[in-house]
Amino acid sequence: MNTDAPVIPALTPPRRILLGPGPSPVDDRVLRAMAAPLLGHLDPLFIRTMDEIQTMLRYVFETNNRLTIPVSGTGSAGMEATVANLLEPGDEIVLCINGYFGERMYDMVTRLGAKPIRVECEWGGPVDIEKTREAWRTSNAQVLFAVQAETSTGVLQDIAPLREIVDERDGYLIVDAVTSIGAHAIGADRNRIDAVYAGTQKALSCPPGLAPVTFSDRAIAKIKARKTKVSSWYLDTNLLTAYWDSPAGTPRTYHHTAPITMNYALHEGLRMVTEEGLPARAARHERNHRALVAGVEAMGLGMHVAPEHRLWTLNAVSVPEGVDDAKVRARLLNEFDIEVGGGLGALKGKIFRVGLMGAGSTENNVLLLLAALEKCLKAEGFAPKDSGVSAAADFYAQ
Amino acid sequence: MNTDAPVIPALTPPRRILLGPGPSPVDDRVLRAMAAPLLGHLDPLFIRTMDEIQTMLRYVFETNNRLTIPVSGTGSAGMEATVANLLEPGDEIVLCINGYFGERMYDMVTRLGAKPIRVECEWGGPVDIEKTREAWRTSNAQVLFAVQAETSTGVLQDIAPLREIVDERDGYLIVDAVTSIGAHAIGADRNRIDAVYAGTQKALSCPPGLAPVTFSDRAIAKIKARKTKVSSWYLDTNLLTAYWDSPAGTPRTYHHTAPITMNYALHEGLRMVTEEGLPARAARHERNHRALVAGVEAMGLGMHVAPEHRLWTLNAVSVPEGVDDAKVRARLLNEFDIEVGGGLGALKGKIFRVGLMGAGSTENNVLLLLAALEKCLKAEGFAPKDSGVSAAADFYAQ
Repeated sequence: MNTDAPVIPALTPPRRILLGPGPSPVDDRVLRAMAAPLLGHLDPLFIRTMDEIQTMLRYVFETNNRLTIPVSGTGSAGMEATVANLLEPGDEIVLCINGYFGERMYDMVTRLGAKPIRVECEWGGPVDIEKTREAWRTSNAQVLFAVQAETSTGVLQDIAPLREIVDERDGYLIVDAVTSIGAHAIGADRNRIDAVYAGTQKALSCPPGLAPVTFSDRAIAKIKARKTKVSSWYLDTNLLTAYWDSPAGTPRTYHHTAPITMNYALHEGLRMVTEEGLPARAARHERNHRALVAGVEAMGLGMHVAPEHRLWTLNAVSVPEGVDDAKVRARLLNEFDIEVGGGLGALKGKIFRVGLMGAGSTENNVLLLLAALEKCLKAEGFAPKDSGVSAAADFYAQ
Repeated sequence: MNTDAPVIPALTPPRRILLGPGPSPVDDRVLRAMAAPLLGHLDPLFIRTMDEIQTMLRYVFETNNRLTIPVSGTGSAGMEATVANLLEPGDEIVLCINGYFGERMYDMVTRLGAKPIRVECEWGGPVDIEKTREAWRTSNAQVLFAVQAETSTGVLQDIAPLREIVDERDGYLIVDAVTSIGAHAIGADRNRIDAVYAGTQKALSCPPGLAPVTFSDRAIAKIKARKTKVSSWYLDTNLLTAYWDSPAGTPRTYHHTAPITMNYALHEGLRMVTEEGLPARAARHERNHRALVAGVEAMGLGMHVAPEHRLWTLNAVSVPEGVDDAKVRARLLNEFDIEVGGGLGALKGKIFRVGLMGAGSTENNVLLLLAALEKCLKAEGFAPKDSGVSAAADFYAQ
């Protein structure tokens, strides 16, 4: 083989305007926080940082759960951590599938040797509660899974009716909050969710790389009562707890080397959430979402999701008949440095996925995107009905 | 619960001198690279970045393996990825255990439902080749595991005799290179290693958070021939390959959102390795290691590992009789901002683990550490024989 060292130029990425399904734009404060010198993962000062991160994560999840930590992987690692810990081989689990991430969970659960029971729901609509109740009643499942914020479709799911179903026999509820955390309320305690996972790269506006999770005390009790060990050493909450949350006064037990710099980023990102406050942050996301919808509809484009089920963070805009969505997205990227996502699975080619998340959810971004989208759609042969920018500006002026 | 937002001050970590078992000091160039604006994980410019990272990783691993990627987790995730992919439930594997990380692998393998065959070796010595051969011959194992650089003991393992054993029946060899990568040669192709995993936080001197791995073509063939799916969706190399290494011209398949910023860091860290060149980098690590040993021995302290088996990156210095290692380490941290590690498991309290890795392997650090260690040992009642600093300075002057 060639033993010469390759010569690779330095990275000089342009400043993309990240309005896709994630990652979202990262505030300069967070980028600067990552430039701080590294502490060791057992340094008393880093332990304090961990405690502070846990305190702020509890605020964002709206929980008092002790086991509230960032898993050292992306959102998908957090996803796998919930079922890897709560399920044993042979266990049944009811999966509400109304998008790509329900399908992903089906794949994960199957690999763990558990028995998934699929509740098939329309992609772009909420979970079918009656079908879910039926599946729960006719199964022996102890665990139910649903996605609060389906990144693939833009649907927000109400958690309360799912908890009601699970309560019929004291079951456990796992919720995906990857695209809701930091924007839509999660209410982990209020909704009595037993395990929630999220990522850092959506409305928390940190770089991807950590997966905040929280487990209820009864979830922990269920995990402690397992007959088999968790198949993944890396994701075993028993081991993670000894590092992240050993009782006061006892030393932390080394598990793995925590991603120090990513935790710095999360610390600063969470500080920005606490400074803004959850209610104000939710209101900002809602307002910019509504302005975008006003603009999109003025142009004569439709929204894929019914108004009462729409996420504020991920907006599924229907691709007009005869327009090639990939060409429009390529124009947005190449001509305007704007990233927007395409549809996944059943929705491939049918929707644009417009993310307005965290630092990306701003009036400037909404207006700029509408202006750029109008130009790109025209270039691809679609004539907008009215000016989307004007409609959004009118909305903001109200 | 309390719904008030917690008020947490900004992080202002001091500049610790990280001379423990990891993380190692990160060069300012790498910290600055992380401040670059984020690209989306499917952005053509990020795809190019991924390609460049793969090219540079192949150089560092000394391999032409196509499947050479950073796993999106810390070194332990890379560790789990190798066995999760190469083993199926019921498969036997011979584990050479001469330190903490061999024990960790035992735990991981057990959880996967495979059958580990332990070759117990002394902590602080290399693998017992005769015992390993015996274990291999009397088992049905297709896979053998050993640690090239035992971070817990400071032992460097020669790979060639292990390959010879495995060749007796065309077996597969997995090697832990977490603490050798970027300092000691790995020679993945030369040694015909089938799977190597590493981390970014040791001699590559990037922040922890990614795990470079490489799999030989025959390892990939073995994985493709599995009867069962890999239990972890997150670590399945089949899925990772579709994102990292789809054939030229075909689009990348979304798997998970890659940790963009950590990949920027790795890109810049690898660029620094390629600029220095592997031979010069190895020579630098060896020279600073030798200077440290000269200083340590002049002070009348012993090295735990025999000269011919010592790592350059991780130096196991014996704690003198009657000295409390934790107190010495606390002094180093509090009085000098120097982090040094303690022993793990059987070596707890018996060794200091001094890391000279990547950006941390410098003449300045060696001299400073020896000066600080001398002062802290004296404060804890140990009288050094001679000046360690003078001995090291004499070594450098040679």
